[in-house]
Amino acid sequence: MTMIYEPPVKDMIFLVDEWLGLENINSLPGYHDLDVESLQFILEEAGKFCSAELLTINREGDELGATFIDGVVKAPSSFRAAYAKYIEAGWTGIDADPEYGGQGLPKLVQYFVDEMLGATNLAFKLYSELSHGAYHLLANCAAAEIRQKFIPKMVAGVWSGTMCLTEAHCGTDLGLVRTRAEDHGDGTYSITGSKIFITSGDHDLVENIVHLVLARLEDAPAGTHGISLFAVPRNWVNEDGSLGDRNNVNTGSIEHKMGIKGSATCALNFDQAKGFLVGEANRGLSAMFTMMNMERITVAMQGLGMADIAYQNALIYAQDRLQSKAPPPRPDESRAADPIIYQPEIKRQLLRIRSQVEGARALAAYASLHVDIMEKTTDDSLRKNAEDTVALLTPVVKSFLTDLGVSSALSAQQVFGGHGYIREHGMEQLVRDSRITTLYEGTNEIQAADLVGRKLTGRTGEFADRFLAKWQQLFDDTRDNDYMADYISPASDALARLIDTTRWMRERLRSDTAAASGAAVDYQRLFALSIIACLWAQIMISIQGKNGLFYASKRKIALFYMDQVLPETVALQQIITTGSDSLTDFEVTDFEL
Amino acid sequence: MTMIYEPPVKDMIFLVDEWLGLENINSLPGYHDLDVESLQFILEEAGKFCSAELLTINREGDELGATFIDGVVKAPSSFRAAYAKYIEAGWTGIDADPEYGGQGLPKLVQYFVDEMLGATNLAFKLYSELSHGAYHLLANCAAAEIRQKFIPKMVAGVWSGTMCLTEAHCGTDLGLVRTRAEDHGDGTYSITGSKIFITSGDHDLVENIVHLVLARLEDAPAGTHGISLFAVPRNWVNEDGSLGDRNNVNTGSIEHKMGIKGSATCALNFDQAKGFLVGEANRGLSAMFTMMNMERITVAMQGLGMADIAYQNALIYAQDRLQSKAPPPRPDESRAADPIIYQPEIKRQLLRIRSQVEGARALAAYASLHVDIMEKTTDDSLRKNAEDTVALLTPVVKSFLTDLGVSSALSAQQVFGGHGYIREHGMEQLVRDSRITTLYEGTNEIQAADLVGRKLTGRTGEFADRFLAKWQQLFDDTRDNDYMADYISPASDALARLIDTTRWMRERLRSDTAAASGAAVDYQRLFALSIIACLWAQIMISIQGKNGLFYASKRKIALFYMDQVLPETVALQQIITTGSDSLTDFEVTDFEL
Repeated sequence: MTMIYEPPVKDMIFLVDEWLGLENINSLPGYHDLDVESLQFILEEAGKFCSAELLTINREGDELGATFIDGVVKAPSSFRAAYAKYIEAGWTGIDADPEYGGQGLPKLVQYFVDEMLGATNLAFKLYSELSHGAYHLLANCAAAEIRQKFIPKMVAGVWSGTMCLTEAHCGTDLGLVRTRAEDHGDGTYSITGSKIFITSGDHDLVENIVHLVLARLEDAPAGTHGISLFAVPRNWVNEDGSLGDRNNVNTGSIEHKMGIKGSATCALNFDQAKGFLVGEANRGLSAMFTMMNMERITVAMQGLGMADIAYQNALIYAQDRLQSKAPPPRPDESRAADPIIYQPEIKRQLLRIRSQVEGARALAAYASLHVDIMEKTTDDSLRKNAEDTVALLTPVVKSFLTDLGVSSALSAQQVFGGHGYIREHGMEQLVRDSRITTLYEGTNEIQAADLVGRKLTGRTGEFADRFLAKWQQLFDDTRDNDYMADYISPASDALARLIDTTRWMRERLRSDTAAASGAAVDYQRLFALSIIACLWAQIMISIQGKNGLFYASKRKIALFYMDQVLPETVALQQIITTGSDSLTDFEVTDFEL
Repeated sequence: MTMIYEPPVKDMIFLVDEWLGLENINSLPGYHDLDVESLQFILEEAGKFCSAELLTINREGDELGATFIDGVVKAPSSFRAAYAKYIEAGWTGIDADPEYGGQGLPKLVQYFVDEMLGATNLAFKLYSELSHGAYHLLANCAAAEIRQKFIPKMVAGVWSGTMCLTEAHCGTDLGLVRTRAEDHGDGTYSITGSKIFITSGDHDLVENIVHLVLARLEDAPAGTHGISLFAVPRNWVNEDGSLGDRNNVNTGSIEHKMGIKGSATCALNFDQAKGFLVGEANRGLSAMFTMMNMERITVAMQGLGMADIAYQNALIYAQDRLQSKAPPPRPDESRAADPIIYQPEIKRQLLRIRSQVEGARALAAYASLHVDIMEKTTDDSLRKNAEDTVALLTPVVKSFLTDLGVSSALSAQQVFGGHGYIREHGMEQLVRDSRITTLYEGTNEIQAADLVGRKLTGRTGEFADRFLAKWQQLFDDTRDNDYMADYISPASDALARLIDTTRWMRERLRSDTAAASGAAVDYQRLFALSIIACLWAQIMISIQGKNGLFYASKRKIALFYMDQVLPETVALQQIITTGSDSLTDFEVTDFEL
């Protein structure tokens, strides 16, 4: 069975046009002219490309895998032709500055396209993904000469970029980085060290690769404040832009992974490789983190896309597969067996995915809009608000959407029964591919530590209170709206639980950090589920009075979310607020029996 | 990194000796002499074999996979030597009747060994697993001549057996079986049809294979009451027991699966293959279901074993891996980073697995004891009670333990961060291998349909009420035990939720079957979580006053279960009882937007 993918353009346009308001994008410099028709056209074209070109080579990419033979890394052969079409159509430069040849579209559009790319071929997408992060990082931090030399080629996709952070002994804790940089005194540096898990660290789809590498200068202070960022091209770039000799960067191996097998994940050895400092010395981590926050939303969109394609294919299977008689009323009494979609349990599994996918897409769109505002607005208070919103929501979006990718792929696989376990239907690959998203760009546990440890304290902490109060205000304002009670009442209850639990967490952050840390993942999920309920309620308000099948379905799905998904928050609040002693009382030494 | 496995013999012995009471086994015919020392010796020997022989070839088996070349199916080459040792040690006949060369040990022992086999090498285990089911089925149903001819070889493991149920168009709904059987009138039949997903349908580890095949006789009634069971040997067996010509059974292909790649899953074509009727004509399904119920507990033990080995290896990794500073009090202030086990979130993930593994093992042991009583007791009322207990608990055990296998493998993989995604640490294989357990032997949704549709109604329904009331009685009797309040109070609350929800389910079974069906999976989980809480409470009572590290840890783990795992039941009850309308109101046609 061939997998299908119906790009969710209708839902994306709905969110922007009927809920968020395109005027919020149009009011930003550079986006005045973006109308619904253009937006729809771009998303539909992207969707067509993903369905027609990328989905069709997704399984072959998994089977062939990236290869590493005689020191040469190659992407799956079927990726070459698709990559040529991909860069020709300009999909590597959606949100890049027109100054460098980009299309100058909002991040919101980029993220929607990221969702479709992630859904149809994550391994392929990864060949340009960190490249995208890298050129934004260079655009923000690098000297003019470097920007002009590297960025246009990267935007065009004829070169790609990498992010070289992780070393064997440190992934999460980058303060432990050991790679060294030596200042040549001529504006160049030599970099020496070994990096692992480098996505697209080497491959044959591009002419050159620009590595962005975290390393320590000789006299750097220990820990996170002694790390600098360097740009190290695989092939040296001459003054005239032509390619020179190969730099001293070599691939030691590529990883054998559970999934995204078409993506080359490299271990790179830098041996006095020549590069340039990007930004200020010893300030490499903060520059990198700005980019990584953007990238976290991209990863979230991958999870979302995979949840959606899993749902779409499980739905079709459930509509086709005849097995057992459904409970009454049966669709056709004369048949020996009914399509399994008529089994309430199967319908429930599908609706669990769909109601979370649509809610999660709203959450991501909400966050993305604030990324655009943060980057473009000329109004200081709007920018500050947008920055805080993005800071608060990034870990929530990353963790919830990627968890959703995995849980949905597993659930969709379950709908296929034993058939979901064999390669044929594509479900097992989706499980394997989606599994990386909760691990990379900071595990979802690291997201939770970020949310609780950083975002609930200080300035963002105060903002978090205002953010939650704003939703409370919405419910106070609509309390008399009887028609909305089915949505507002559960969302408002969940919000109250979130506000109470936030108070509890903040108290523990002062009095008992370990208790707060131990509850962080549950709190993060409580946050996501509750805020998505608020967004669903706001969406319901925005479509009140509208008729038609689309709106009727949205209402039913919102109700399903409130009734069948949201109650988890009751358990989460209880676990967080009453469960911490039993965790603390279990000592590390108690593990040894 | 090489995976380790510490067989949980201590916990197994604890459950039998200090909680269930070995006297309940000893009072059964045939088991009078089984003492703790022998039991411990057997389990330790099995554990040694699993750790030393099976775990070491598990990854290679995954990498080599079963092969199908020129019509010949082969197990991974590394399995051959291990299989020879396996059958020589008699591990294929643990619970088989000594009359056929078996060891005549209780099912309880068999299931404990199943857990260890599943933990260390599920693909290997599958070469003897259905063989085990097949000889029990033959022992119960087949004519004496067939029993004598086939069973001793199968018990010895020099032949193996299969279960040929599934066809391409029917897995769950066996009433749709199309394979035909023609009566030759000489005591033999010819079988024609195609079967899929046949575990060990062909392979090179044994001299012969006995297929147990569901098929329809020519004049059979339609549906489930027209299906008969046949024994079809791959090679014909002569009167003197020697092997004759090959039967007309051919392998069409083997499946390319997500995991258990070392296991050969075959599509078999029967083309007028010669076989024998087993049991009565048209009564094949009920015979098969008796065996399948036993097999469901075996599959549950696989899930349990995989959860445990995932936990054990994640624990070691977390103790070794240095990353970031832990919240105070840090184990060593002078280090730049602490072992991640000191991160409360990591500790929490590990304890979530462990508290469920130990609780689930208790549940499985409880069910297994009742299997032994059901099979051996001479007391009618004891047997009836045991039969009902096994009938009620089988779907709960199968679904909860296999869901636990998958969720634990995923969670353990998460502890490894990005390193969990590469082959090296074995976690990704565990995720892939464990994933089959929620799908085969009846998906966990089918288990839920069985629990709600069959086990809550009629005689088992009445039994279910008595079963729940018995736990209620335990809590009523111990209500004044202050020392136990921490365990009894949450367990008793959960039981009350289960009793209330059972009432709700039973009402819906009469008035609104679709609502009951749609809530079945959540109900099944509510049932498992609540009953495990009851078992934990009973275990706490059984060790009251006992001192020592083992008991102290058990208490802390029980408390963790109550505080951090059990609250899910609050959400489940709410979803089941208030969520059904939003599911019913969403029509199948609403999926089309």
